[in-house]
Amino acid sequence: MKTPRHLDELFTPAAVVDVDRMTANLDKMASYVAGHRLALYPHTKTHKTPELAKEQLRRGAPGVTCATLHEAEVMSSVTDNILLAYPPVSLPKLQRLVDVAGKVRLSVAVDSLVVLDGLQRALHGTDVVVDIMVEVDVGMHRVGAILPNDAVAIARAIENSKNTRYAGLMFYPGHIRQHVSEQKYDIATTRAVINEFLGAMVQADLAPTRVSGGSTPTALFSHQFEGINEIRPGTYIFNDRTTAAMGACAWQECAYSILATVVSTSVPKQAVVDAGSKAVFKEELRGVPGGDGFGALLDRPDVIVKSMSEEHGILDLSKTDWKPRVGDRVRIVPNHVCVSVNLHTHLHLERGGEVLDVLAIAARGW
Amino acid sequence: MKTPRHLDELFTPAAVVDVDRMTANLDKMASYVAGHRLALYPHTKTHKTPELAKEQLRRGAPGVTCATLHEAEVMSSVTDNILLAYPPVSLPKLQRLVDVAGKVRLSVAVDSLVVLDGLQRALHGTDVVVDIMVEVDVGMHRVGAILPNDAVAIARAIENSKNTRYAGLMFYPGHIRQHVSEQKYDIATTRAVINEFLGAMVQADLAPTRVSGGSTPTALFSHQFEGINEIRPGTYIFNDRTTAAMGACAWQECAYSILATVVSTSVPKQAVVDAGSKAVFKEELRGVPGGDGFGALLDRPDVIVKSMSEEHGILDLSKTDWKPRVGDRVRIVPNHVCVSVNLHTHLHLERGGEVLDVLAIAARGW
Repeated sequence: MKTPRHLDELFTPAAVVDVDRMTANLDKMASYVAGHRLALYPHTKTHKTPELAKEQLRRGAPGVTCATLHEAEVMSSVTDNILLAYPPVSLPKLQRLVDVAGKVRLSVAVDSLVVLDGLQRALHGTDVVVDIMVEVDVGMHRVGAILPNDAVAIARAIENSKNTRYAGLMFYPGHIRQHVSEQKYDIATTRAVINEFLGAMVQADLAPTRVSGGSTPTALFSHQFEGINEIRPGTYIFNDRTTAAMGACAWQECAYSILATVVSTSVPKQAVVDAGSKAVFKEELRGVPGGDGFGALLDRPDVIVKSMSEEHGILDLSKTDWKPRVGDRVRIVPNHVCVSVNLHTHLHLERGGEVLDVLAIAARGW
Repeated sequence: MKTPRHLDELFTPAAVVDVDRMTANLDKMASYVAGHRLALYPHTKTHKTPELAKEQLRRGAPGVTCATLHEAEVMSSVTDNILLAYPPVSLPKLQRLVDVAGKVRLSVAVDSLVVLDGLQRALHGTDVVVDIMVEVDVGMHRVGAILPNDAVAIARAIENSKNTRYAGLMFYPGHIRQHVSEQKYDIATTRAVINEFLGAMVQADLAPTRVSGGSTPTALFSHQFEGINEIRPGTYIFNDRTTAAMGACAWQECAYSILATVVSTSVPKQAVVDAGSKAVFKEELRGVPGGDGFGALLDRPDVIVKSMSEEHGILDLSKTDWKPRVGDRVRIVPNHVCVSVNLHTHLHLERGGEVLDVLAIAARGW
């Protein structure tokens, strides 16, 4: 693939990364975790790109986090330490898991005895050992053991097999989203829940070596949760409109955008660009202040993508004096970066409009 | 790639097509257009799969519709007649358009003089001729010339270049959505707008040879729009939860689903499956009756996907007696099939659980 020299030469829509902003985001998180003696296992679901995982490892991350087996397979080319933060269920998945675990040190999140049992059966007869992180629910109510006693039971059952080893506790504080900048998030309740789980484990003589938490919105407050020694943020490498709207980053820290071309201005007070729900994704801002729409222009955040079809993004021009013309180019910051990156095949790394590199988003799909 | 023999052997999430339902959907539309002397240019954005375009062509479609240049490039391997239903803007796109137009008979939707001018400049000096469909706005307010005089001006300007040829009028009735089954849709107003455009063209001695309309919800009513001689539905090959909710198909005509595995039942009244917004997509049902959520189970439509993370779909069990267990498999009909297919790399064609074929979704991306 011949690399175009400048954004103006790119076919649109195209996924674009401001390399200086990305570097600053990476450095900021690396510095935070170093200052608080936390291990950073960056979640690769956001970029799905091994070259960017390398940038995270180079800054001190001991390994990476993956959600899917395909992510783990791809990332095994750049690290030998992977945390699979997803309960692995069903034989086709477990077979691939055993293969990956044969190549790298694999830690796996498990939230029930039945998942653990399936994993132990799949590993049986091999000499592969998998580290188990007992996943507990600290308020998001998605997955995770609900009761401390259930977490203890899972940890105990890990010993039933020589192929599994108890490594620690894991949770995802995805419910703590609102008003992070004002610290109005519900840290006290969540801390109490975590402490309850930790206490039960200690009492059962199962004190965890690793305690893994952290998402991008809460990442920089991780030191306020006692006992946590690892975090798994993903979005922080690029940030997005949601992260900015909840105050967990500045707008100027948004590094990812979708380059698009204005294709029609025939309907008054709007302009249509060639990036729709198949390039931007169609996820609403939820539970955070900051407005309607599915994205906003990087250089004109008062212009939002008010609606979308598959290949059409409709820009709302009601709050701007800007008069776009057909052929003009814009850069859209999506509401949710992880699902937008996943729609593209390549990331175009740029500085000041110059395209420095084009990276394949190799871990898309399953 | 070794083809698994049965759905039970598939890695999940996986995109699955009930081949008998798909065949029935294809036959039904082919029969409708034959009975009403309409030309069917099926929109390939829905399946993005050349083998399925072949099935449509085999049933009498004279060509296909594409939204993107990449779709057109891929579909040029199975047909020599393509309608690009999207205004092509900017040089990188126009260069690829000229290449495609050198291979097949290409018709292109144009809704402004500036788009036409750019296209004519790109074609200048070549011996390639492109058919132009003047796109007009009949009520959706997305793209399309608003005033009949503007449409006339575009049609006249087509003669400015020997590389462009006036072929007809085109519109997309995407605003006619609600209560199709009860015929409560606003057909009279839309018909009047279409007639206004047609009348202006005839008066300007520009009577269009082709008049292209039609979307899946309105497809089977196309004969009620006088003057239309082509339609461009896409969704009809698979249908989806939106199509069913608006009464434009029966639930039993939904041919596409995402196969998923239950991975957690730890939180009461819900089950978590391994298909989230990166496999199902996250588009709400809008303006149609039929409920909340982002999808529903094919075999249990009372169970909806009430929320999603990237790799987690949360099934709402509040309206069912069904007690899923970890490891159970389900099939999810998404709200919007086109954007869900676009998330996958392969379609698994099945009959009674047996996997008959695996097709690459070759036209994804741009």
